[in-house]
Amino acid sequence: MVSRRAAALAAQPPAIAAAHFRAEAHPYHPRLRPGGYINLGTAENRLVWDLLAPRLTGPRPLSAADTHYAPLHGTDAFREQLARFLGGVCRTEVDPEHLVVVSGVTSALDVIASVLCDPGEAIVVPAPYYGAFDVDLVGRSGARLLPVPLSAGRNFQVTASEIGHALTRARERGVTVRAVALASPGNPVGHVHPPQVLREIAEVAGQHGVDVIVDEIYANSVFGGAPFVSFLDPEVRRAGTGRVHIVWGFAKDFGLPGFKIGVLCSPDPEVCAAARALAYFAATSTDTQAVLRDVLADRAWVARFLAESRRRLALSYASSVELLTAAGVPFVPVGAGFSLWVDLGAWLTAPTFAAEHALWERILEQACVNVLPGQLFASPDPGWFRICYATDLAVVTEGISRVVRLLGASEPRGDERAAVSSRPVGATRYESIED
Amino acid sequence: MVSRRAAALAAQPPAIAAAHFRAEAHPYHPRLRPGGYINLGTAENRLVWDLLAPRLTGPRPLSAADTHYAPLHGTDAFREQLARFLGGVCRTEVDPEHLVVVSGVTSALDVIASVLCDPGEAIVVPAPYYGAFDVDLVGRSGARLLPVPLSAGRNFQVTASEIGHALTRARERGVTVRAVALASPGNPVGHVHPPQVLREIAEVAGQHGVDVIVDEIYANSVFGGAPFVSFLDPEVRRAGTGRVHIVWGFAKDFGLPGFKIGVLCSPDPEVCAAARALAYFAATSTDTQAVLRDVLADRAWVARFLAESRRRLALSYASSVELLTAAGVPFVPVGAGFSLWVDLGAWLTAPTFAAEHALWERILEQACVNVLPGQLFASPDPGWFRICYATDLAVVTEGISRVVRLLGASEPRGDERAAVSSRPVGATRYESIED
Repeated sequence: MVSRRAAALAAQPPAIAAAHFRAEAHPYHPRLRPGGYINLGTAENRLVWDLLAPRLTGPRPLSAADTHYAPLHGTDAFREQLARFLGGVCRTEVDPEHLVVVSGVTSALDVIASVLCDPGEAIVVPAPYYGAFDVDLVGRSGARLLPVPLSAGRNFQVTASEIGHALTRARERGVTVRAVALASPGNPVGHVHPPQVLREIAEVAGQHGVDVIVDEIYANSVFGGAPFVSFLDPEVRRAGTGRVHIVWGFAKDFGLPGFKIGVLCSPDPEVCAAARALAYFAATSTDTQAVLRDVLADRAWVARFLAESRRRLALSYASSVELLTAAGVPFVPVGAGFSLWVDLGAWLTAPTFAAEHALWERILEQACVNVLPGQLFASPDPGWFRICYATDLAVVTEGISRVVRLLGASEPRGDERAAVSSRPVGATRYESIED
Repeated sequence: MVSRRAAALAAQPPAIAAAHFRAEAHPYHPRLRPGGYINLGTAENRLVWDLLAPRLTGPRPLSAADTHYAPLHGTDAFREQLARFLGGVCRTEVDPEHLVVVSGVTSALDVIASVLCDPGEAIVVPAPYYGAFDVDLVGRSGARLLPVPLSAGRNFQVTASEIGHALTRARERGVTVRAVALASPGNPVGHVHPPQVLREIAEVAGQHGVDVIVDEIYANSVFGGAPFVSFLDPEVRRAGTGRVHIVWGFAKDFGLPGFKIGVLCSPDPEVCAAARALAYFAATSTDTQAVLRDVLADRAWVARFLAESRRRLALSYASSVELLTAAGVPFVPVGAGFSLWVDLGAWLTAPTFAAEHALWERILEQACVNVLPGQLFASPDPGWFRICYATDLAVVTEGISRVVRLLGASEPRGDERAAVSSRPVGATRYESIED
């Protein structure tokens, strides 16, 4: 027997992880296993290892002090480098004392949710949202999520008014909301949110007396025309009256998800103190902190690395878009992140999440491609899938081609679908707003 | 404002950590800062860096796969090496699937407490106990500890009968106890528990239907005559009917507390599944797992390293014992660990924890030595202190000499103390049972 709480957590293994490991067990190889699995489900940056390897495989100038007990929310030296780096990204001064380093952004989200919410209190999240929010923000904190469905007709762009309405409705229903959480840039829909929208969200959160949790893990993976603007940018914050807490990590921008280094940045001293107390349970390796401290210290290298990563992401994105467009598969054009939000609604046998799940299974079983169904991201409507392209171009091409071939074997049900959804169908209907 | 739960955690920063960082800020140096702080409070193995450095500072043969997403309870390759290593230490076959790697033994304790206990349920712990149990086993799980005071007259040896009585009393009072937790070897009193005692504890736990959590973090730091016997040893487990969960880590035996690699070993599949779900929030760096995987793979090196570490620990222990004995300061002789449990009760101004705290402050302020007061370890009686010796011999000698000088300035109140405590006073009254 285990505790009720642990049993509940164990009963909901993160579906994203399960699909990932299944696909990774028998991976595609053009020569050795041409029918193997192609993993376009995991948002992992596999485009940059050649750049990283020289820095990570060489000798490590570790000292004895680097192996001893250190502040459990990150060593002073590492937080200083992080503060300087994030200050540049967010175009503001970042105090190392406002940073709490923990075991990946997963833990950073858990920590901030646990700091802000007692069990049963709520966090408003525009949907679709990063699927792991369901575990990260909820699993240990006991908070619950209130999704705000975004409109496909507006390309799933987040708006402050929809968040404001959700906060008002929650209050009317007697629900205590502690925060609004969103990814910026977006995930699964990689929008770069315009500063005006961020400002309005800060304002509406302030008016309702709730905090804002912003997952900026893709901050440096912006390749479209619109530049990234952090929620910490003075242009955004001057209007906001609510507290803002940012999370970031090395998993995406630096392609190092295994290193499990995430950071919470909160300018609120009480939140920081509480977060430090929780970081005690999710402390990170001083070994890995030391190597990343030295990486960040080489500012010129970091700038070159991030620029090259963005260049490669843009290429992979463009190729993926080309393949989808040629096949008549609709998607939302974006300017950041590792994934495309693709509308396969026309290929569902019925406009239901059961049919979406069936199509996901067909893609996994018959095409041996792991993409993730929209339901994992709390998609408001069935039929959307997240396809990641941040991997070798040949692999992405093979994967998308397989999906397209599978879809080609069944006619799209465009007319039928139009009757149950207000969304138009067609590859060109979504106008790019960021490219 | 922060959540009630976070506020409670933040209000109780682990006192051990606070004292540590204070002492580390202005450390003693024989030439540069002869009056600086000497940290004999932190149980940190500072005797082995010269042995470790060649393995940790050289090139790292990392592959791209080592940096990607991996099972969040430890990579397969690391858990395989760990299982082989722990199997040797525990003299039993250890299945890698029974291992859950998390962010240090802190997290391993948090995970097992959270898996076994719902909030309000209890864990019985023989006292004195490792002070951080108060946070590790309680802070996030919401469990509470029921200390079982051990007798100074019996050298604070744990017995199954005392645990049995505590379990019976708890049941009579309607308290739901889920587990017994203890350190083996002991901490702060570094006893190597005899297999007979472990067997009896397993039996009594089984009779009461509670699990046993055993912190074996000092398993390879045994230098006395009695060999370490794990709770997983078939000799112990054959008699036990309850479930047993072991935690271990690299902080003590390998002198790498900063690396934050702990492991929970539980043969129970349901507990393992729940622990894996919680490990998701405290995952460790694949970077550090890779280097420790390679360290463990070199079995001959590991055997030599641990033997040399034990030899150095034994030397430091012997020197510390000699200094204390010469000064007439009583202590409990032990055969394992990094610390001595020292009785300064005769030098308290009164037989109270307030007086113990005052003496602790005097030692810290006047002698500039960080030792830890027994109250932090739930000592049943005031006056005990934990003095760590696992550091450079010259530093230990200077530290203990300073304490002895400070004590010499005030007369021991032997007769007065004897009236309020059944404990005898005198350096030779505790007989060694392990050396």
